Amino acid sequence: MARRPSLVVAFQGEPGAFSQAAAQKLLGKSFVSLACASFLETFDALSRKRAGLGVIPIENTLHGSIHENYDHLLHSRHAVIGETKLRISHQLITMPDIRFNEVREVYSHPVALNQCRRFFSDNPQLKPVPFYDTAGSVKMLSEEGRPNAAAIASLHAAALYGGRIRRRNIEDDPQNFTRFFLLSKQPHRLTGATGDWKTSIVFSAPNHPGALFKALACFALRNISLTKIESRPLKGRPWEYLFYLDLIGSRNSDPVKKALMNLAELTEWLKVLGSYRPTP
Amino acid sequence: MARRPSLVVAFQGEPGAFSQAAAQKLLGKSFVSLACASFLETFDALSRKRAGLGVIPIENTLHGSIHENYDHLLHSRHAVIGETKLRISHQLITMPDIRFNEVREVYSHPVALNQCRRFFSDNPQLKPVPFYDTAGSVKMLSEEGRPNAAAIASLHAAALYGGRIRRRNIEDDPQNFTRFFLLSKQPHRLTGATGDWKTSIVFSAPNHPGALFKALACFALRNISLTKIESRPLKGRPWEYLFYLDLIGSRNSDPVKKALMNLAELTEWLKVLGSYRPTP
Repeated sequence: MARRPSLVVAFQGEPGAFSQAAAQKLLGKSFVSLACASFLETFDALSRKRAGLGVIPIENTLHGSIHENYDHLLHSRHAVIGETKLRISHQLITMPDIRFNEVREVYSHPVALNQCRRFFSDNPQLKPVPFYDTAGSVKMLSEEGRPNAAAIASLHAAALYGGRIRRRNIEDDPQNFTRFFLLSKQPHRLTGATGDWKTSIVFSAPNHPGALFKALACFALRNISLTKIESRPLKGRPWEYLFYLDLIGSRNSDPVKKALMNLAELTEWLKVLGSYRPTP
Repeated sequence: MARRPSLVVAFQGEPGAFSQAAAQKLLGKSFVSLACASFLETFDALSRKRAGLGVIPIENTLHGSIHENYDHLLHSRHAVIGETKLRISHQLITMPDIRFNEVREVYSHPVALNQCRRFFSDNPQLKPVPFYDTAGSVKMLSEEGRPNAAAIASLHAAALYGGRIRRRNIEDDPQNFTRFFLLSKQPHRLTGATGDWKTSIVFSAPNHPGALFKALACFALRNISLTKIESRPLKGRPWEYLFYLDLIGSRNSDPVKKALMNLAELTEWLKVLGSYRPTP
């Protein structure tokens, strides 16, 4: 029996990265991972057809929107076809032969180390050591077998590299969520799109007073709910702004379609990034 | 003659950090630096009167808003009394006795290393080594005198620790700016405030369709320009949002004062973070 060709999914980070966990939440487990060194490489993998789908983080509850990925979305032809959120929890992980009270050095990405400050102040015998990647730090321990060393990474990375979790959920702030987009070269076929769809758009508007107000009127007058709005100054064009907007409804549903036509009349430039059904 | 008591300014990072450079742009050079380990410690230093002023980064053109600092602003009584922007440029720095062609390892914060990817791919003999802090990596070189090592940090850090700049402005994207707020326990006295003032506010609104539209009407109807808008989901309260808004005008000028009174009628909660005159 012929095997179905494998679905290749590109994401940034080592296997075990949070983006890979997001891909599993979006797609189940039957795909081949293509780990990329950067977000740009993730987009390139889609453009060059090395991957059929891509997963990128787009915003984090503590750190805000990832403008780099918005920029790549603006300059690519890839469509957003899915969305999910992941709670970012940090685990203290060792190789099986290392016990907690032997640990002296803890490797991880500095952002992760910094999100576990209370844990380090409660355990002054532990020295945080910055490393390139959360999952990569567990991979390094599994390959090099350092004594007295632990890593901070996800449950998923622990499982993947044979690590043991010695302390669970050691992050200071439990309200640490990252939102991910699923990307494809082809937009969703939206025939018969009903239910809880969302649509993400980007548009530019001059900053004369009331320009944004008029733009939002297109949605308010049609009772369309917004779930995100963010302005971003356009570099080199003082007083012009890009706006990121997420709204409830698919681009093919009647009120949204009309609102977008209305918005196109009022703005200088408008791009629909995609319509998608969020994966809870 | 009695010396005037020194002005102490708190900021996060080692001396030589970008926040210190922002403080110099805002205040000139005659202040005493209080280097803090975290943003929270910067706010604490103000609360406990260890510092008279504080400087915090609030957003970056590549990385977005720094929600952690917005959160601290919401929960503190400190007022924003100044604003400036700083171009984030990265320099390859060595100690005076190390020449460029001897360098093999380059220390810096991973975010800075990642912003110089093209430089590393053009110079494959150089290995990026993650370190806690940009300025801290230059300080470490000056203290430990490692052979074959360089750091990536600011011009300011190079000058402070006696480093030499071996390659200038090696960042991939020259459009890398960070916006900083100057904080004080006391708001500006705004009597007679004219000229180019800005005001930053935060408010919450329920997400029934049109709630934001109505809020923005308070400004659009009075021809008040907005320079930033951003929504942020309120954790634990689905469908409720915080909005960050910056507008042109001081809180004491007539149209802004009326707009804020109008907005208070329409929103559940409103806080004025401060009015300030931007330092170009």
